[in-house]
Formats: sequence, structure tokens, C-alpha cells
Amino acid sequence: MNSRKGEKKVGKYTIGVDYGTQSGRALLVEVGTGKEIASSVKAYTHGVMDEYLPDGVSKLGEGWALQHPADYLEVLQFTIPAVLKEANIDASDVIGVGVDFTACTILPINAQGTPLCMTEEFKNNPHSYVKLWKHHAAQDEANRLNEIATDRGEDFLQRYGGKISSEWLVPKVWQIAQEAPEIYHAADQILEAVDWVVSQLTGSIKRNSCTAGYKAIWNKENGYPSKDFFKALHPLLENVVEEKLSNNVYSIGTKAGEITEKAAKLTGLKPGTAVAVANIDAHVSVPAVGITEPGKLLMIMGTSTCHVLLGEEEKIVPGMCGVVEDGVIPGFMGYEAGQSCVGDHFEWFTENCVPESYHEEAKQLGVDIHQLLSEKASKLQVGESGLLALDWWNGNRSTLVDVDLSGVLLGATLLTKPEEIYRALIEATAYGTRMIVETFRQNGVPINEVYACGGIVLKNPLMMQIYADVLNMDIRISDSTQTPALGSAMFGAVAAGSERGGYDDITSAALEMARVKDEFYKPLEKQVKTYNELYNEYAELYDYFGRHNHVMKRLKKIKMSHSKLEMETVC
Amino acid sequence: MNSRKGEKKVGKYTIGVDYGTQSGRALLVEVGTGKEIASSVKAYTHGVMDEYLPDGVSKLGEGWALQHPADYLEVLQFTIPAVLKEANIDASDVIGVGVDFTACTILPINAQGTPLCMTEEFKNNPHSYVKLWKHHAAQDEANRLNEIATDRGEDFLQRYGGKISSEWLVPKVWQIAQEAPEIYHAADQILEAVDWVVSQLTGSIKRNSCTAGYKAIWNKENGYPSKDFFKALHPLLENVVEEKLSNNVYSIGTKAGEITEKAAKLTGLKPGTAVAVANIDAHVSVPAVGITEPGKLLMIMGTSTCHVLLGEEEKIVPGMCGVVEDGVIPGFMGYEAGQSCVGDHFEWFTENCVPESYHEEAKQLGVDIHQLLSEKASKLQVGESGLLALDWWNGNRSTLVDVDLSGVLLGATLLTKPEEIYRALIEATAYGTRMIVETFRQNGVPINEVYACGGIVLKNPLMMQIYADVLNMDIRISDSTQTPALGSAMFGAVAAGSERGGYDDITSAALEMARVKDEFYKPLEKQVKTYNELYNEYAELYDYFGRHNHVMKRLKKIKMSHSKLEMETVC
Repeated sequence: MNSRKGEKKVGKYTIGVDYGTQSGRALLVEVGTGKEIASSVKAYTHGVMDEYLPDGVSKLGEGWALQHPADYLEVLQFTIPAVLKEANIDASDVIGVGVDFTACTILPINAQGTPLCMTEEFKNNPHSYVKLWKHHAAQDEANRLNEIATDRGEDFLQRYGGKISSEWLVPKVWQIAQEAPEIYHAADQILEAVDWVVSQLTGSIKRNSCTAGYKAIWNKENGYPSKDFFKALHPLLENVVEEKLSNNVYSIGTKAGEITEKAAKLTGLKPGTAVAVANIDAHVSVPAVGITEPGKLLMIMGTSTCHVLLGEEEKIVPGMCGVVEDGVIPGFMGYEAGQSCVGDHFEWFTENCVPESYHEEAKQLGVDIHQLLSEKASKLQVGESGLLALDWWNGNRSTLVDVDLSGVLLGATLLTKPEEIYRALIEATAYGTRMIVETFRQNGVPINEVYACGGIVLKNPLMMQIYADVLNMDIRISDSTQTPALGSAMFGAVAAGSERGGYDDITSAALEMARVKDEFYKPLEKQVKTYNELYNEYAELYDYFGRHNHVMKRLKKIKMSHSKLEMETVC
Repeated sequence: MNSRKGEKKVGKYTIGVDYGTQSGRALLVEVGTGKEIASSVKAYTHGVMDEYLPDGVSKLGEGWALQHPADYLEVLQFTIPAVLKEANIDASDVIGVGVDFTACTILPINAQGTPLCMTEEFKNNPHSYVKLWKHHAAQDEANRLNEIATDRGEDFLQRYGGKISSEWLVPKVWQIAQEAPEIYHAADQILEAVDWVVSQLTGSIKRNSCTAGYKAIWNKENGYPSKDFFKALHPLLENVVEEKLSNNVYSIGTKAGEITEKAAKLTGLKPGTAVAVANIDAHVSVPAVGITEPGKLLMIMGTSTCHVLLGEEEKIVPGMCGVVEDGVIPGFMGYEAGQSCVGDHFEWFTENCVPESYHEEAKQLGVDIHQLLSEKASKLQVGESGLLALDWWNGNRSTLVDVDLSGVLLGATLLTKPEEIYRALIEATAYGTRMIVETFRQNGVPINEVYACGGIVLKNPLMMQIYADVLNMDIRISDSTQTPALGSAMFGAVAAGSERGGYDDITSAALEMARVKDEFYKPLEKQVKTYNELYNEYAELYDYFGRHNHVMKRLKKIKMSHSKLEMETVC
């Protein structure tokens, strides 16, 4: 069985398609070496809709975040032909395709597979659109779900750190049933966007085990929660599994189907090309950096950060996002945790809080605003600004699982400068990661090594040094600029199988195709010391505002009373 | 004795000169009516020096804030001739001049009255310059002073709310003695800048009772603290009163002297014109809005806010700045409290945190950035932003008397907009004022009416409505755009006395010359209710960060360790 590294794979290629928050991309990779031959990106035409529907007049409520599924098809139509053309290869040499998404991102479709938002009947109904992972308007449902599950002693809760997030499938589906029963009734299925995209390639829907396990309370042994539980949530939900979801869930690492004639026309791929069962962007990245054993944490950093980790045993870790058997690499427990606001944080800051003079300076130096701020911030000593932030601009995913929490900046003076705030925001996200790492360790899940991937990791060395110093650990960096797409391409090669020039399992694929840089970030002793002091301050405020003084919840309640008033006025 | 209002004053004028943080101004007023005839402003050439000395290379430490006394003379030289010219009157019709300052603002001078910073020998020594009120680098000295005074059971402490501020004279003088004994020794006197300016007009130094009482721990009955106390602070200070200050303190409302030949050349005034004993800008404003009795709080709003209030009895109010008998209006207790960062707050925000697009929008609409932000912020409902701030960008003066406290913004999300932060900063200053009002009331000093003056009061109706709603009280507004200067002009007329066409006391002057607008701000019931809820949240965080979690102090300590390191490197 052992071939020399990649010898049988010469001239074969695989494509990974990765859907992020703002854009989708395709990456064409050489099987056997992991060499990235060509890539293409397409920004979503409708972006993230958090204020209005595409009609520009239907106003969305507080916490809403929608997408348009037509944008996903545009990604296939634009990027796959682009990489084939750039690589200048014959489409028949592409043996497989894998797709991953930022989850949980769901949509309702009709029996023909058409998203309800793309029908004339429902296009003005906000509930017909894709609810993006960071759609936070189902918090009331999530709160009720957690209460009911706790009261009923539902076992599944502990696999999800004690709380189901409002970002996940069940609260979002419940919100539809509650606020728009007409959409709920009209939906033939409600499914993950990534499964819908795969169905557009293969002609049939095969739900994947990764999103089902991490985002839809599905378990390999027990399936979904009981009808009784769903009925206790809402009468309409009693038969939600049979009526809107499906008990047929397909394992990651298997084949979903093959490219149809229709999909071939859309993408330029050959009909019959293997398509992998879908995956989540974070989880699919783990084998792409060569992690196939426990103790190694991967941070997938972008607009948000996802932490994925393998373990030998199932441990209960408070506030983790989930633990799923075979959820990442078959044979291991796959743990997930996350921070819901990282790159988004810095983007919000540059858009809303950086003065004209800084933008002018960046222009003159020919650098982007993040580079300018990073350069200025890198000249600061640790603690020199006197600032400390809580990185909760988009709530806290782990370890508090609470979207009602909000951002804090503390320590401002009249001499506080933008680069100081920028650095404090970066540091806050590093403290948030350390809180997650310490929580795993305290609950018996070891973390011995840290890896990172994502565009922001390559663009911002200051950030990575801060993370190494705050965590007091080396950080190894993915050598791909598009790690999830590389992972999906690897799963595409696994879907093809060894008989078509691919692999029989993901571990074999990782051995040949995974990529990590030789250089890594080492913690600097002096900075570690001061960051320990600052982290202790962070941890105290984390506990105070996360668990004791619920001022943020009370402020949000006052805020929401206006938002509801406004929606009533509009309706 | 009763003349008809102003009948004997026709054709007589008086000039008030008011020194603020960024500029000085002269106001020429008609005696008898308070009508403002002409005014002129001169920005300080050196501004506020908080990073470098005028040489541009000598770096100042954390918390320093200096000024250059040459700028004060430029104000006299530029603005007095300007108002005489604009009013087109004969200088002989000006019967008096009054001067006020933002205090405590002190400088060391030699025996010739020359500021040490204007001598070749000392011009590169930062301790030779004027220490502005907001110079905060004597905090260690203030802390030690409070400890020592407490240990010794010094009675004076309770007259100052239990704490002497680092902004006041004794800590600042101690800092000079400690860090620059050569300056301490070389100084013939160390005095308030306002007394120095008056001495430049009259040829002799007459220290005023207002700054002595409120800022230099002087008391009408007991004078300064004892030699023993000063010796306990620092050996050099044992004879500080005799050697660097003076036991001769002159009451407000009396005459300091007359314009000298030299001052006449500088200003264009006639030699012999009466000059009043100096005053503080805040305190001098009280009679200018017609307050001559207890229960009426005046807010003097600018870069910072000063609260002045008359009372019948001496009450001990924790965290007030001071209570001085006859300190504001003879016959009453004059209470003072303050907020060290109000307009400065908003200015910091517009300079550091407002994006390019807002400045462009303001340009296109032909409004300044504050107007634009106010207009946008005024469209928000109370509590709609979900934000709450602690207004401590420059520490907290009352009721915590702690410059080590720093600013907090809480409740930020990815949808937070600049106008929301702007409004939250305004609201935070209003909560800070309410905290002061409630503290006075709780300690037996009634407040039944609120008055406001200062440029920002006239420019920002949104702010004043917020204050009315947060305080749940009507707010009456000074009808002068330059209330302190009007007050100083009134004291100038009192210095002249009735025999020269002025007045015999300030109460008589207030009866004829004080000015308040007919319109006032009324609280809106609905807003009051929500602001009560928000104020309760503010009060809880105020207590937590002000008294329990000393995170701000610890962050500042880390910050200062860098600052000291840097200074060592420079020296």
C-alpha cells in the first residue's frame, strides 16, 4: 500500500471551494504535493445584509445578518473556470472537488431545491433568506431552548459546553417557525448552505456529519434530539427532523456524488468528477496543516476565529462549541471552540474610528490602513497604552456562549491614540484565545502545540507575536494562504479515491499534501511577563461582566425596546 | 443709596480678561447694563505643552501639562487694544479691569517678577514653566500628602472633600522641590498665574483669596497649614509659606491696584485704571448669571466643568473640591466640585476616532464636525446605542478625586457608529454631574436650580437637553457668550467703586449687570425615565471601578513603568 510520496499522482488536480463571510474562493491544487497551482476569489454581490433586504427598504432588526444564495452560485460560476484557465490544464485532470463553509449558515428551500428568497412569493420576507452564522436575532429562542433542555435534563447539552448557541441551526429554525410560520410551512427543507451548494453540483442533497454534529445537535449514536424535546420548544417543531431536516447524514471523508451535466456547464468541470460531502471551513483546515493527532490546537483566524482540537476521550468543557466523535478526523474526538469577532473587530475599528490623517498617511506610504496601524502599534511596549479591552463586539462564543455581551474599552485618556486602541483590540482577542486554551486544559483536554491559519495570520506579524506572547507558546503557521480551500481540495481527492488517482482516507492525504511554514513565532520572555499581568486583569473583568454584573444585558434590553418599537412602526 | 438701574453709569465701561486652557479673551462691557460691547480672543502661541518643551526635543513625562507665561502677556497686548478699538471708545471711560483664570495654574518667578522659564538659565528645565491646572504628574505627591494629612489628623482635609487633588498648588510645589530643587531654590515666589498677570498690570503682587482658599489650602481663619505639616512632606517645604508663598492674601471684591505706566503702554488703558484682585473663571461666573443666594448650582462648562454653589452652612461633602467661606460671594459658603474632562472629551474623540467620511460630510454640509455628530446623535433614542461610558478620560475630580482613573466605553458592537459613541460620551459627563448633585444633596447641601455657562452650552443644545433629562431639572443658560469675562468685568467695576462710576459690592453689580436667557431647557418625562435606568448602571460601574476593582491603577502603573524607562533613556 505504501507508495513513495505522491509518485502516482503526477498530473492530477483537485479543487477546494471555500465560502467565507464576505467572499468565496476556489483553489486548484496538485494531488500528491499540495502545491497550489491557481486560485480565484469572488466577493458576494449582496455582501452581508445586516440593515436592509436587497430591496433597500425592508429594514432588518437588531442582530440580523443575512446572505443571498445567488451569490454562492456566482462563486462557482466565476472562480472554477478562472482557476482552470489560470492553471491551463484540462478539466479531465481534475479528479475531485470539496466544498466548505463558515457554519452554521442555513436557508429554506422548496421541493425543487430553489431557495425561498429566490421566489417571487417570498423575496420580501427576511426569513426566506440565508441566515448567516453571525445572525444573532434568535437569542431569545436559544435562551428558551437552553432552559427547556436543562429542565428536561437533556444529555446533549454537555456535549456543547452546556449551551446551544443562537448561531446554530435549531434556534434559527425556531425563529422562522415563530416569526414566519408561512416560510416554515413553505420550506420543503431547511439546510446548511454548504449542503445546498454541494447539491447544486451533484443534483442531490447529502447532509454532512460535520455541520450536523457541531451545529444541529446531531450525534453519531443518537441522532437528533427527541420529538418530545422539539415539541416542547414549539408545536410546529415536533416533526422538524422528518419534515425539514433529514435523518440521513453522511460522514465527512465520503463522496457526495459527481458533477452533473448542469453543474458542468456552470463550472467548466467534467460531468462525473467526484464531489466530497461538505465540511466546515475551520474543521477542514485541520488536516491541511498536517494535524492528525491530539494535543495540537488549530486557530482558524478571519472575521471570527474558530479553534479546533483533537482529543482521545470525550471530556466536558464548559463553554466549548462542541465535541463530535469523528467530527474532524475519523478515530478522534473533535473539539471546537470559537471567538465570534476577530478580524471584524479590526475592520469595524478602521471603518468607524480612524481619523482622516491616518488614512492620508497610509496613502502616502502606499500601505493599507491595517499595515499602518500595525506598524505604529508594533512600536509600543506591552502595557504602554494603559488600555485593556474585552473582545465582545460580537458577543462571546467561548467560553461564555453569550451574544448579549458587548465590547469594552477601558483605560482611555486624552492622549490615547488610534494605534493604541488597535493594539488593545488585538490583545483582547489574544486574551480571549488564552481563556479558551486554559479552559480546555483545566477540563482535561491537553494543548501542547498551537497552529494558525487564515489570511490575517500572514498579513499581521504583530498580531501573531502578541498571540505567542500572551499564550506563551510557539505558534506554527499554515504555508497556504487559503488553508480551508486546501483542506477541501484534499477531501476532494479523498472523494475521488485512490483508484482515480486520489486517496482512500484523509490521513493519507494529509501526509502528502499538508503544508506548514518552516519559521514560527516564539514567545519573548519579557513580554510574556507583562502579558501575564494584563491577562489577569482581563480575566477578572471577563468574570465580572460575563457572570456577575449583567449591565450589558440590561443595556441591550433597553436598546432592543427601541428596535422593536421601530420594527412595529415599519410593519 | 438706591439709584435707578444703572442710571449713573452711562458712558462708563469695564473690561474682564479671562484666561482659558487654549486661549485668553477680553470683554468690554457697559457698566450699569452688562451690555457686551466688544470682545477679542488670542490663542496661546505655545498652546498646552503635554509632550515637549518649546525646544521640541525635551520630552515631558506622562501626565505633564505646561504653559508659557509669555502667551499670557500676548493676550493683554493683543486683546485689550482690540476691544478698545472695536468699541471705539476713549480709554479714559474704562473704569476697571478684572482678571480670571482656570486654576490651579502656577509658576515660579524670580525677584524681578520674571518667570524662571523666561530666563536663559532655566528655559530647558520643564519645572521652570507654568504647571497648568491639568498637569497630573504630581499624583504621587498628592497621594503622600493625603496619607500624611490623614495620619496627622489635619482638620483642613475635610474642607476639601477628604482629599487634596494633584491639580492643586501644594502637590505641584512639592513636585518642584522633589524633582528640581534648583528651580525651587531659584524661585523668589511660586504663585498662581492669575496673580502674576495682575502683578504685570499693577506692578505689585497681591495674592487672591479665591485661589488661595480653593487651591492652596488657605483658610480665612487659620491661614495655611502648619510648618510641621509642610516639614513632614519634605524638608525643603518647612518654610514654604514665608519663602515661596505669602501670608498676605487679599479678598475677592477688593482692589489690587492701578494700571502702571508700563502696563498702559502694553494695553492702551490709562494709567491709574482700577484693577481687581484676581479670581477663578468658574467662581467669577456665579454673579455673572445673577446667582447671589444658596441652592443654585452653576455649571461652568468648557474643556472641563466646574460646579459652584452657595450654601448657608459649612457641610462636609465627600469628594467636593472645596468649601471656602466668602470664596464666591461674601456672606456665604462657596462650594466647588468639578469634572476634569468634558469638552476635552469630545475634542479627543473628533481628533482621534472620527472617520474621513464624516469629516467630508461635515465639509459638504458646511458645518463643523461637532455639529454633524450632534445632529446625527440627536436622532438617536435614549439607550438606543446600548453604549455606556465612564467620563474619566482625564481622571475623576469629583466625587472620587482620583487622576489615576481612566475612561471606559462599554456596550460596543460591530454596528456601533461614531455618533453613538459621541452621544455616549456626552451622556457620561451628564451622569458625572448627576453624581455630584446627588452627593451634595445627600450631605445636606440643597440644590434646587441649575444654571450653565460656557461656549459649549450655546453650541450644543443636544448636550444641554441630555443634562436636563439626566438631572431631571430645568437648566437656565447664561446670556453671555463669555460669562467669566463678564464676571471679571463686574469685579473690575467693583474695584473702581461707586465714586468712580462702579459699584461698592458684587451683589449690587450683579443686580444691574448679570444676564440669563429667557428660554431654558426642560426635562422630557420619557427620557428622564430611561436615563434613570442608565444612570443606575453608571453609578454601579462608578463604584466598581472607582472603589473596588483598581484595574485602572494597575494598568497605569504598568504604563508608567514604560514612561519612566523612557525618561531615564532620555536623561
